[in-house]
Amino acid sequence: MSQNCSITSPKGFRAAGVSAGLKKTGAPDLALVVSDTPAVTAGVYTRNVVKGHSLVRTIEALQRTETVHGVLINSGNANACVGAIGQKDAEEAARAVSDLLHCHPDQVLTCSTGVIGQRLNMEAILSGIPVAFHSLSHEVAAGHLAMQAMMTTDLVPKESFARISIGDKTVSMAGMAKGSGMIHPNLGTMISIITTDAAISRDFLQQMLSRVSAKTFNRVSVDGDTSVCDTLLILANGMSDSAEILPGSNEADLFEDALLLVCLDLARMMAKDGEGATKLVEVEVSGARTPEDAYRIVLSVCRSPLCKTAIFGEDANWGRILTAAGYSGASFHPEEVDILIGGLPVCKNGCALPFDEAAAKRILQKDEVLISIRLREGECFDRMWTCDFSYDYVKINGSYRS
Amino acid sequence: MSQNCSITSPKGFRAAGVSAGLKKTGAPDLALVVSDTPAVTAGVYTRNVVKGHSLVRTIEALQRTETVHGVLINSGNANACVGAIGQKDAEEAARAVSDLLHCHPDQVLTCSTGVIGQRLNMEAILSGIPVAFHSLSHEVAAGHLAMQAMMTTDLVPKESFARISIGDKTVSMAGMAKGSGMIHPNLGTMISIITTDAAISRDFLQQMLSRVSAKTFNRVSVDGDTSVCDTLLILANGMSDSAEILPGSNEADLFEDALLLVCLDLARMMAKDGEGATKLVEVEVSGARTPEDAYRIVLSVCRSPLCKTAIFGEDANWGRILTAAGYSGASFHPEEVDILIGGLPVCKNGCALPFDEAAAKRILQKDEVLISIRLREGECFDRMWTCDFSYDYVKINGSYRS
Repeated sequence: MSQNCSITSPKGFRAAGVSAGLKKTGAPDLALVVSDTPAVTAGVYTRNVVKGHSLVRTIEALQRTETVHGVLINSGNANACVGAIGQKDAEEAARAVSDLLHCHPDQVLTCSTGVIGQRLNMEAILSGIPVAFHSLSHEVAAGHLAMQAMMTTDLVPKESFARISIGDKTVSMAGMAKGSGMIHPNLGTMISIITTDAAISRDFLQQMLSRVSAKTFNRVSVDGDTSVCDTLLILANGMSDSAEILPGSNEADLFEDALLLVCLDLARMMAKDGEGATKLVEVEVSGARTPEDAYRIVLSVCRSPLCKTAIFGEDANWGRILTAAGYSGASFHPEEVDILIGGLPVCKNGCALPFDEAAAKRILQKDEVLISIRLREGECFDRMWTCDFSYDYVKINGSYRS
Repeated sequence: MSQNCSITSPKGFRAAGVSAGLKKTGAPDLALVVSDTPAVTAGVYTRNVVKGHSLVRTIEALQRTETVHGVLINSGNANACVGAIGQKDAEEAARAVSDLLHCHPDQVLTCSTGVIGQRLNMEAILSGIPVAFHSLSHEVAAGHLAMQAMMTTDLVPKESFARISIGDKTVSMAGMAKGSGMIHPNLGTMISIITTDAAISRDFLQQMLSRVSAKTFNRVSVDGDTSVCDTLLILANGMSDSAEILPGSNEADLFEDALLLVCLDLARMMAKDGEGATKLVEVEVSGARTPEDAYRIVLSVCRSPLCKTAIFGEDANWGRILTAAGYSGASFHPEEVDILIGGLPVCKNGCALPFDEAAAKRILQKDEVLISIRLREGECFDRMWTCDFSYDYVKINGSYRS
């Protein structure tokens, strides 16, 4: 992602990120993203039966409205598990924004991320909102500030951008995402906002978003934990003046490819910035009998603390990979499994292969490691991203709340 | 477990533990347990589709024989994923023992634990077997030595003992277990051998073992990884001279209670000795709608790295516990969940409770921590044991193989 693009790059989007005082550190903690004209909006949310109050309100608001004007995001507090007051607080925050935007409160969505079980500091939120509103800007830097204000344990901002041509018009799409712990299908403690100036119907946008998120955000696991606030939203305001993107058209394919690119980019950045991570790990399975078997295996390997600590230790311990595949619930013949690490064959037909340990070490010392598991059961393929498991994961999570 | 009891305490069992040279450190690595008369034997094994060669051979041998004379256990090498030679090696080792015991090779079972994908050092095994055979002894200390020879990353030996009266006879039961990483239902990288001088049929023994292991060994999770070698065996040689234990009798209840006690004891010791563990954590769920829901929740909490690192950090972060319950797949109403940590209510009706953080800290500083999750969906209960997730887990597993 170029530093020259951000969530404000598509036409008609403004953003702001300010310090409202929700984070003890004084870092930016309140972000506002606004579309100049109402935007059709699609979303994908956590499947956790426990849901944060800001998220529940967003889901309900989107059932009542076709279009959205703004999204308010706070970090430092998840606004979850505090009882009925939690949803009232989210409603009050949305109303404060809608008063400034002169729109219906339902046209303002709310996202919260941070610690669970503590009431939002509403004084901070309500005094931060006008500051954010007056800081709203079309500048690229304003989008970067909004990104900063979403971050919790993230070490790096995660932004991505794509551009396609529709007729003689240029359609842009930009995304930002936060999340580095509690990340796991289906969605993590993740908030991602995507803006586009494309013209598209809400239903079609929702279909695409669901398809694309299944292949991207729902294929990232940092620690197997799924949070209660996970939210992926896309706002399309049509301000590129391009023709509407219709199902079955070439333009639809182009647009979906761009969405896939942006989501894949953000999802990989999340895995790479996993709490304590030193490496991005991609696990791919081919030759599975069913899509479910392929998914079970990538999930099991990505979730295995033993595989993840071995990669942290730069140890080509493929036995742990085969073991994790073995207990995944997938059905396969162990004696017909090949495993490659960074392209280096380490296991053939379920047996140890003699391999150059020095070459394996060089592969594992890289920032990105590809693990390939090849079965001979069928034609199905899947892949997933995770990160290694380090001392710092324990450090970060042994002391997050206090 | 008293230092005065070991696997040799039941009548007619001898044991040995010697250093055959399989471990680089020179620590004991070859154990032999022998019953003076053939013992009826039941077993429970890993459900991993990848199985170690010594284990596959044991399962096959038990299909051909009714009784067992001895069990050979090596640490330092799992004898797994090395191809057809692996099972031949296990057969050769068993034959070397059966030659000395003057029995059929099938009456000698084989268990291996350690690194995956490297061929067993058969020279070491075959020269170690006669040494172990000549060291066999009924002494308690010989049982302790066998325990030592099974250990891999275990820090402490795990032995347990129980005694019941059947008529005017005393029936004894002793167990030993190894395993501290790659432990997870269904069974971990665990080997456990239980001896008893009870008289009992094989079928009835198997039924009891399956029931008891479901409540004990299959309710322990250290890291969510299930190994390829996990084996739980019980040998009953009848040498107490008591009457046969028959289904439906009071004696059967007594015996099953004793077996539960021994297995529970060993399972809790395994969780407490989990790799890098500083605490034993018991998670119990009550009021679930179905047994499956109760199990899903205890499993999800016991598996959550975020819950386990919070406990390591002695942080009463119940939000992570509720979150893990929420993504477990169990169906429940979050607004009707209470959570207690060490008896201290921290969450009521899904909401934060004000609680004394100092009191919570005192509870979490203890060696054993009980997490209680109370639903109001039904009457079902389950519990499971795990440990916290520490820097040392990462250290141990980032450098195990090399």
